[in-house]
Amino acid sequence: MLYNIAVHDMALGDEIEGFYLLSAAQQRTTNAGKPYFTGVLSDRSGSVELVVWDFAGGVTPEDNGKVVKVRGKVSEYKGSRQFAAQRFRLADANDRYDPDELVPTAPIDREAELKEIEARIASMADADYRRMAEEMLRRHRDSFLRIPAAKSVHHGFVGGLLMHTGSMLRTADFLAGQYAEVINRDLLLCGTLLHDLAKEREFDFSPLGLAVDYSLEGQLLGHLVMGAREAAALAEELGLPREKAVLLQHLILSHHGEPEFGAAVRPMCAEAELLHLIDMIDSRMEIYAETFENLSPGAFSARIFALDKRIYRPEES
Amino acid sequence: MLYNIAVHDMALGDEIEGFYLLSAAQQRTTNAGKPYFTGVLSDRSGSVELVVWDFAGGVTPEDNGKVVKVRGKVSEYKGSRQFAAQRFRLADANDRYDPDELVPTAPIDREAELKEIEARIASMADADYRRMAEEMLRRHRDSFLRIPAAKSVHHGFVGGLLMHTGSMLRTADFLAGQYAEVINRDLLLCGTLLHDLAKEREFDFSPLGLAVDYSLEGQLLGHLVMGAREAAALAEELGLPREKAVLLQHLILSHHGEPEFGAAVRPMCAEAELLHLIDMIDSRMEIYAETFENLSPGAFSARIFALDKRIYRPEES
Amino acid sequence: MLYNIAVHDMALGDEIEGFYLLSAAQQRTTNAGKPYFTGVLSDRSGSVELVVWDFAGGVTPEDNGKVVKVRGKVSEYKGSRQFAAQRFRLADANDRYDPDELVPTAPIDREAELKEIEARIASMADADYRRMAEEMLRRHRDSFLRIPAAKSVHHGFVGGLLMHTGSMLRTADFLAGQYAEVINRDLLLCGTLLHDLAKEREFDFSPLGLAVDYSLEGQLLGHLVMGAREAAALAEELGLPREKAVLLQHLILSHHGEPEFGAAVRPMCAEAELLHLIDMIDSRMEIYAETFENLSPGAFSARIFALDKRIYRPEES
Amino acid sequence: MLYNIAVHDMALGDEIEGFYLLSAAQQRTTNAGKPYFTGVLSDRSGSVELVVWDFAGGVTPEDNGKVVKVRGKVSEYKGSRQFAAQRFRLADANDRYDPDELVPTAPIDREAELKEIEARIASMADADYRRMAEEMLRRHRDSFLRIPAAKSVHHGFVGGLLMHTGSMLRTADFLAGQYAEVINRDLLLCGTLLHDLAKEREFDFSPLGLAVDYSLEGQLLGHLVMGAREAAALAEELGLPREKAVLLQHLILSHHGEPEFGAAVRPMCAEAELLHLIDMIDSRMEIYAETFENLSPGAFSARIFALDKRIYRPEES
Amino acid sequence: MLYNIAVHDMALGDEIEGFYLLSAAQQRTTNAGKPYFTGVLSDRSGSVELVVWDFAGGVTPEDNGKVVKVRGKVSEYKGSRQFAAQRFRLADANDRYDPDELVPTAPIDREAELKEIEARIASMADADYRRMAEEMLRRHRDSFLRIPAAKSVHHGFVGGLLMHTGSMLRTADFLAGQYAEVINRDLLLCGTLLHDLAKEREFDFSPLGLAVDYSLEGQLLGHLVMGAREAAALAEELGLPREKAVLLQHLILSHHGEPEFGAAVRPMCAEAELLHLIDMIDSRMEIYAETFENLSPGAFSARIFALDKRIYRPEES
Amino acid sequence: MLYNIAVHDMALGDEIEGFYLLSAAQQRTTNAGKPYFTGVLSDRSGSVELVVWDFAGGVTPEDNGKVVKVRGKVSEYKGSRQFAAQRFRLADANDRYDPDELVPTAPIDREAELKEIEARIASMADADYRRMAEEMLRRHRDSFLRIPAAKSVHHGFVGGLLMHTGSMLRTADFLAGQYAEVINRDLLLCGTLLHDLAKEREFDFSPLGLAVDYSLEGQLLGHLVMGAREAAALAEELGLPREKAVLLQHLILSHHGEPEFGAAVRPMCAEAELLHLIDMIDSRMEIYAETFENLSPGAFSARIFALDKRIYRPEES
Repeated sequence: MLYNIAVHDMALGDEIEGFYLLSAAQQRTTNAGKPYFTGVLSDRSGSVELVVWDFAGGVTPEDNGKVVKVRGKVSEYKGSRQFAAQRFRLADANDRYDPDELVPTAPIDREAELKEIEARIASMADADYRRMAEEMLRRHRDSFLRIPAAKSVHHGFVGGLLMHTGSMLRTADFLAGQYAEVINRDLLLCGTLLHDLAKEREFDFSPLGLAVDYSLEGQLLGHLVMGAREAAALAEELGLPREKAVLLQHLILSHHGEPEFGAAVRPMCAEAELLHLIDMIDSRMEIYAETFENLSPGAFSARIFALDKRIYRPEES
Repeated sequence: MLYNIAVHDMALGDEIEGFYLLSAAQQRTTNAGKPYFTGVLSDRSGSVELVVWDFAGGVTPEDNGKVVKVRGKVSEYKGSRQFAAQRFRLADANDRYDPDELVPTAPIDREAELKEIEARIASMADADYRRMAEEMLRRHRDSFLRIPAAKSVHHGFVGGLLMHTGSMLRTADFLAGQYAEVINRDLLLCGTLLHDLAKEREFDFSPLGLAVDYSLEGQLLGHLVMGAREAAALAEELGLPREKAVLLQHLILSHHGEPEFGAAVRPMCAEAELLHLIDMIDSRMEIYAETFENLSPGAFSARIFALDKRIYRPEES
Repeated sequence: MLYNIAVHDMALGDEIEGFYLLSAAQQRTTNAGKPYFTGVLSDRSGSVELVVWDFAGGVTPEDNGKVVKVRGKVSEYKGSRQFAAQRFRLADANDRYDPDELVPTAPIDREAELKEIEARIASMADADYRRMAEEMLRRHRDSFLRIPAAKSVHHGFVGGLLMHTGSMLRTADFLAGQYAEVINRDLLLCGTLLHDLAKEREFDFSPLGLAVDYSLEGQLLGHLVMGAREAAALAEELGLPREKAVLLQHLILSHHGEPEFGAAVRPMCAEAELLHLIDMIDSRMEIYAETFENLSPGAFSARIFALDKRIYRPEES
Repeated sequence: MLYNIAVHDMALGDEIEGFYLLSAAQQRTTNAGKPYFTGVLSDRSGSVELVVWDFAGGVTPEDNGKVVKVRGKVSEYKGSRQFAAQRFRLADANDRYDPDELVPTAPIDREAELKEIEARIASMADADYRRMAEEMLRRHRDSFLRIPAAKSVHHGFVGGLLMHTGSMLRTADFLAGQYAEVINRDLLLCGTLLHDLAKEREFDFSPLGLAVDYSLEGQLLGHLVMGAREAAALAEELGLPREKAVLLQHLILSHHGEPEFGAAVRPMCAEAELLHLIDMIDSRMEIYAETFENLSPGAFSARIFALDKRIYRPEES
Repeated sequence: MLYNIAVHDMALGDEIEGFYLLSAAQQRTTNAGKPYFTGVLSDRSGSVELVVWDFAGGVTPEDNGKVVKVRGKVSEYKGSRQFAAQRFRLADANDRYDPDELVPTAPIDREAELKEIEARIASMADADYRRMAEEMLRRHRDSFLRIPAAKSVHHGFVGGLLMHTGSMLRTADFLAGQYAEVINRDLLLCGTLLHDLAKEREFDFSPLGLAVDYSLEGQLLGHLVMGAREAAALAEELGLPREKAVLLQHLILSHHGEPEFGAAVRPMCAEAELLHLIDMIDSRMEIYAETFENLSPGAFSARIFALDKRIYRPEES
Repeated sequence: MLYNIAVHDMALGDEIEGFYLLSAAQQRTTNAGKPYFTGVLSDRSGSVELVVWDFAGGVTPEDNGKVVKVRGKVSEYKGSRQFAAQRFRLADANDRYDPDELVPTAPIDREAELKEIEARIASMADADYRRMAEEMLRRHRDSFLRIPAAKSVHHGFVGGLLMHTGSMLRTADFLAGQYAEVINRDLLLCGTLLHDLAKEREFDFSPLGLAVDYSLEGQLLGHLVMGAREAAALAEELGLPREKAVLLQHLILSHHGEPEFGAAVRPMCAEAELLHLIDMIDSRMEIYAETFENLSPGAFSARIFALDKRIYRPEES
């Protein structure tokens, strides 16, 4: 009997006991009228089909996104691995397992990233933008450290928003120096920090922190409008001058670039233009990075939905 | 000497004294180096070119949109009428003239329209939506009675927003009955009342109340986002349930229908869908009405920019 | 044994005899080489998978859209109900069943709707448009009472065209009053009545009256061009003045609004503009109504093909 | 004194008497209050500005498109030639001039072209399509020989439709042979002959035969729908089988290829597809030919509106 | 036992031995853990599912596109024919079979087509363009005779490029005569010959000559850019004047017409415009021809991906 | 008499002698038949209208873009300054003036920028890409130091290409570090250096080095295709591996991002994606910088053609 081995390493014939994440759960009935249960088990290393033939209840399709304890054997079905569980129950408060092992997590040192962001905020010369940044970070700190930046397109893992924002801030800081003639560094840094914070309310999250679907506000308002509204309210509270408050909202509202890509308005100042392009760069590069994980050098990917094209991984990159 | 006659009625050779609106003002110099002044005089009946040869100062191009007192004679220049003023000064606090004669005004009884709107609000069954409507109307009452609904496309006259909103509310009420199965009448009426209120801050207005240009917020945020923000704040203040607050914001944010026409999100509930179509109907019908004013029956208009097409006025409509 | 129970009410284990509509019929062969038959049985309440293991012939895939008599038992297959028939034959002239029970039908009183339409026509002041409307209705009366307005998008049930047209006429009449300055009520009402009449020849219909596919003319000419041609011919016959005949054709040809949505020309008069928007309103509201039938309050639908978006059903609409 | 010299050859200082076409006519008043008259004189060789200082009436702006008799002198104004007329009147029934000298005319032998078309029709094997072609040509013969194929884009001269159709028929005949496997020659030839015949009613024509503007039917129905309607009526009269009548209408309705370019339906049979492409070829080649008339070898044209691009004339083509 | 019978003619129960093309090959494992092999067998007449239950190795999924020798029996599985092979191995150098029987091949006399093309080249008056054509044909002769013009859209068979080019050259020659005023026949013919030659390097080909996927250069550069580059290099080598070299490249680079359809630049000379339209005609007509092979007269096809529409095959074409 | 004062500083009444750049030159005739000459004089500081009443010849409109020596007086005409020249001739080889004073020039130290670029190339680890970069720079050095990057949109001044490329290389180097996981620094740097080098042949340049119009190759081939071709030829000469040669061409061909913006292919590798976005950033930021030169803080610009929108310059940026 093996314990808690990574899903990626499960081999035909292995007998295993451990904690895994449940998804795609369905309760079904055999031709003979007997209930059985199917679903998918996963951890951060991968996923495997689950079947529970002698299903005695205690778990339902509503438990998708929760952790289960299983005991069983790896077999094969139609060319894929299948985990046939003899024992199957929800994990409870007494169980011991590491949640971070069960979901994909950003490949960075999250505490260090946060410190770097805080140092960058502290370096802002404009007190208005600096206070906005500090206070927004204070209010969102917990979710900012943990939530993904998307459901699946890119950065769809725990800590994704932190990784995405930290990376963009580094680029923003560099480009603010490169184009100091037209760019207000503090406005750009503050807008970059704030631009996606409202994703916290755009999604409904699973117990382990992944985005499972859009929330009511996420669908009907969108994170751009929600983020701009929060920025406006805080700017009022902190007494920012009118123009600064408007510019910050504008950066948030326009960071998708064009209306057909979700921008509420098109970028009309240099910092908004740049924020949009920095966002494009970081999201595109992450899509390449995530695609390369499953792509051999010298090969083309399948068509990538978010890009509407195939991409190529050079042999010697 | 004629006094305050309508611009439309000025005839070649008339000597006139009166108050008119100044626009397109430019101070220039003759080849001989003498300063002179040109511009346009208008009232609600039409406009005429202005020239002041013996210009002694006291008016500048910054006075566009203000009222001037002129005395002079109507002549002709390159086939058009031209008002050559001998006397020319800004109107001041002691002058007596009727501002409503100087700008185009909605062809309705504004007080009656407002009463009908208030009665319609009072008839709303849902106390949450009714209180939202009442309070928003209370806060915006003055501007709501007076501001245009646009710079020029349609309803670009004093009282235009009131006329546009009142007309849409009548249609909304009718259609809420027609489609009672899917439409919540109170949500639709409330969203219709609120949808354009933020135009108050989208434009800069001339002293006499016309929209002369977009404001900073109007350009960088837009009246949809500003309107949704105000609705959200008031909904919080009044303690509306979350869904109602979100739906009202959604109606405001989506009333332009598609992102390429300015919607921050696409309509996703039946009331938002209907509000958008009612807005289309009222703005289109007004464009036809305003075009017909200068179009003979049986003729085609020139290309209308807002519609990107020519329109036809039937002989017997 | 149960008789003619609604498909929606069939439960596991029920033994049933009755008349149902056959679709998706396929004759197949088991691994053992034995013929069997599969398809779908439906009535206006819903549908269920059909399987006939001991298939003795007498029904073929060409019989799709016809009524069959079945006797059998409700079992389950892959999580769905399946009707396993022991007896299976086409209904014939001697069988007694109510066709209206077997297909979805407009949820209105069709006779009353027709009377209302006739009264509205009788109220038209312009004798030319009134005679056009009366004569077209006289010629199309039978199909107008019965055919759907579409294959599936909206109003795809028996009586759908009548329901759609009646509803649009009510709105047209209201808006003709609201915008009397630019709208000729009689032209608008007449165009509304005529706009979809040629759907009678756009589709091939099943024996029970549903639209099963586009006809040759429907594909190669479309109902807009066919409808305009019929209107032109009748206008000539009745001696309508040239402009009226052209305007009526124009309303029919342009009622889809934009060429990419099927309009042969863009609307260029106020009545054509309005007819298009009224058509949009009625079809959109019906899509919401039909979607709500299978959508819980507080939930989002799946993506709706005809709208290219998901829609939301509020909790308290 | 020179008589009736070509406008292209008028030189500074020439004194000239002759008949020319009047356009852009305007009656105006000098600063001194004296009436004068301006406009443009043209013949098939070119055009020149007209001014009549001592204007004594007898011609009005409504006479645009008519022939005038002038006597005067060629001078220069702002760098362009200007014809200053001392005598100026409308041509009347007693005047002798050659209308074909006054308007641009197709550079072909029109009688020979018509004979070739008739021979091609006579060669059609399918009696139905042949009778359609013969009868349509019989009915439209006069206008077919004379009208332009457009206002200005291409073939905008007398005989333009004949030249365009004749050229397309030659190509159609060749390609019907090339793709005999999928193309019905007689359907393609008949559709090609008919495709633009309704241009006769799409435009209002000047007395000398140029298209001056769209007619009411031209704007509200378009020549595709009008042409299809006439074909349908004649097909009925001649008793054509249903499919042939539908296909002919389809070719006419779809010959602009895509809805955004004016097609009422997209081409769905091989002949319709080919007709559209042949129309593209002939209109494009004529645009090149007309552009080359004023373009030196080795040079690029200005942006051509109908193509939305500049074109190049090779040095050695 | 039947030998090498056409796949199209295989009937249930037939015992067969022969050589066929292998594709879609997969090695799999039964529930019982036994290896088996599935794939598709095809020849130019059609294809059939393959299963090898007692799979002893010797063939792998990498052998897709190769020829195999099989011996087995035709059975049925889920309504389709299935070839169950008892013997199964790769064909080797000693085996005797006709490759042209195994892949679809252009329905033309390839040697005759080539001769006609050579004669047309020989007839070119301009020595520069003629030498370009002769030399390019000399260098590409082998592949030109054999490769398809596409993966699947049209002309996706052995000899497809030759058939496509030959057909286009005939049309080009005809139209060069028809539009001699603006078209340089030799430039057009030379550009037509060259336009697709680089397809030789755009695809990876299977051993029997079909295009199986895009090559690295095909994806990252495209056949337009590769073709233009080769033409430029040869033009330099042969000492063509600058304008001729540029024009030839331009024809190749622009022959897809619009950037969204793959053109590197839009056509800007008459020959480029015409080449694009001739390419459209030949590819469209071939799509119709290939679709008609499986479409009954009087029927509509399913939606064709490359055209984004259904097409109709007339009853009497 | 003032000598060679900056055009920007010319004041009404100044008498001036000096060397300026001539453009918009036209030779005209007064009503009285006397020849005169008009045009525009400019230097790097601005431009002024020119008129030469007593024109004695010696300069023609073909001399646009050349330097002239003028002597005259600044007056005013229709509200603008006008330079009325008494003496007027072309500058010749004996004249002494500084060409860099006469045309706008990049606001950078060009020698230092070039050194930084050379150092960056020298730091490349991959010998293939480094040799490509070195050799291309060696071949293009002269034009690279001098030509503008565009006619007018951005960087349209002497040294513009150098400034644009140098700035992009700094950003590319930074981002290659930031995204080292997916980006090959040497490929990105090499592609960045090469991406616009073919602009040298895309334009025709004036004697002082501004781009006056597209060249034949520039219009018919474009700088992307020309640049890729040169890179391919050099890669062959230097013996680069196939993949590296293809990737470099791909970066050049795709750097405009989308076909509708001129890309011959869409970016399909990470470096191509990034190069496109870096190009966007640098060109957009330069458009903002150039617009800000004539825009007050707190104001909106007029609509900018290249961006299809207005932009805002914040008060405190």
